[in-house]
Amino acid sequence: MRLTTVRTDTGTRAARVEGDDLVLLQARDVGALLADGGDALADGPTVAAADADLAPLVTHPGKIVCVGVNYRDHIEEMGRDVPPAPTYFAKFREALIGPTDDIQLPAPSVSTSIDWEAELAIVIGSRLRHGNAAQAMAAIGGFTVLNDVSVRDYQRRTTQFLAGKTFEGMTPLGPHLVTTDEVGDGSGLAISAMVDGVVKQSSNTSELVFNAVDIVQDLSTIITLEPGDVIATGTPGGVGAARTPPEWLTDGAVLRTEISELGACVNTCRLP
Amino acid sequence: MRLTTVRTDTGTRAARVEGDDLVLLQARDVGALLADGGDALADGPTVAAADADLAPLVTHPGKIVCVGVNYRDHIEEMGRDVPPAPTYFAKFREALIGPTDDIQLPAPSVSTSIDWEAELAIVIGSRLRHGNAAQAMAAIGGFTVLNDVSVRDYQRRTTQFLAGKTFEGMTPLGPHLVTTDEVGDGSGLAISAMVDGVVKQSSNTSELVFNAVDIVQDLSTIITLEPGDVIATGTPGGVGAARTPPEWLTDGAVLRTEISELGACVNTCRLP
Repeated sequence: MRLTTVRTDTGTRAARVEGDDLVLLQARDVGALLADGGDALADGPTVAAADADLAPLVTHPGKIVCVGVNYRDHIEEMGRDVPPAPTYFAKFREALIGPTDDIQLPAPSVSTSIDWEAELAIVIGSRLRHGNAAQAMAAIGGFTVLNDVSVRDYQRRTTQFLAGKTFEGMTPLGPHLVTTDEVGDGSGLAISAMVDGVVKQSSNTSELVFNAVDIVQDLSTIITLEPGDVIATGTPGGVGAARTPPEWLTDGAVLRTEISELGACVNTCRLP
Repeated sequence: MRLTTVRTDTGTRAARVEGDDLVLLQARDVGALLADGGDALADGPTVAAADADLAPLVTHPGKIVCVGVNYRDHIEEMGRDVPPAPTYFAKFREALIGPTDDIQLPAPSVSTSIDWEAELAIVIGSRLRHGNAAQAMAAIGGFTVLNDVSVRDYQRRTTQFLAGKTFEGMTPLGPHLVTTDEVGDGSGLAISAMVDGVVKQSSNTSELVFNAVDIVQDLSTIITLEPGDVIATGTPGGVGAARTPPEWLTDGAVLRTEISELGACVNTCRLP
């Protein structure tokens, strides 16, 4: 099953993807749909997917957890060591944008070191605390695409990444939640980022140091995971900061973030 | 004005503190009250403060931002450098407990290195983006007490603090929001942590490297701050990890976190 979140005249609505159509459902977004369970799945009106204005797949996640340094080639290019456990940091809701929304670049006086990070994102489907691997797998609602667009100088101005990772309106999320009956544990998927048609990142989710089940199980030791929680699993090599000379996203650049079977986010960068 | 959040038979409610009484208000917590503005301030029933079961002051903050390494004596004891900008990390809602709730220690097989961190917390009162210093001050709704109880081995297992900072049910928040007409910008307040009656931390909020206004202004460059957002401003010296030998919170320990003019959280540590 493929689910999405659409902007309508009366606010956002979750929808089921049926070929070229979207069937509107009784929940404000995919997160609320997962929290409500099956009752919210009753069919509403149908709209053409081509006409739809997609919102962030989950508009109000209770948590957005990001995993850093989780692909071996990215660990090497950033000069870091393979960590003994997943490296977690957070992002706040205001960072999220829809899969075709513009990326809101900060004013040049704030930062110009804006970088891409294509990531496989987990969306939690059911509550989990202290789960084993099988329970962790069962708690995963599905997968989607996220780009952890990063403000590198803010990320690096202290030891903690958060400041550079949660800038407003810079993190595309979507277009679809694809459930685990279609894509299993999220491994074996081609992942890429393109800027203005040029491939910058190209890898496979099987290269993750800690995979989706590892991450969900470990996080559930720390805190209860709830339906609609979003977990970004890290980015492969090829980011702009690691290039010589470094490359940054600039006004007008088109960032395409794609994962096989899951679809693509295509976002244009815009100065204020 | 002093505001608090009380558990009632029908869920949590915001309340205004009037001497020994609490006047219940039309909002589920202080965060919702701040978001609703003055209309929610109409008086409801009165209950005796002595009988009240206090919830986390803000039960559903949109964001919890923590500032690390922000008192000079704590920076020295942890062997860090004074950072050039505030060091931000996050905490999730499930970490919060009320001002007299038990602190949920993790099972000893998960961690035993549980540490205290008394902190002044800001609660945002009105929306702010790209604010100057005066606007940042005006956006502060008031101040309260937080203890950023930390699981040190999880905090240190990677470069990023989040894992050790957001364990479920370990972060006391409350008892009251004290508005800025009473405590100004939150400077000049005595702050302390006591464990089983022994003073472990004792400092003053004037020792902050980045004060409340600095932090709110800087954060608003990154993201929109919303009413009810909670910002913990960092802890002074005297944490358990910096003692020789290190000292940790154990089953039955009573942690008292106090800030002059704001009140105290008194929480007992409990194993599962």
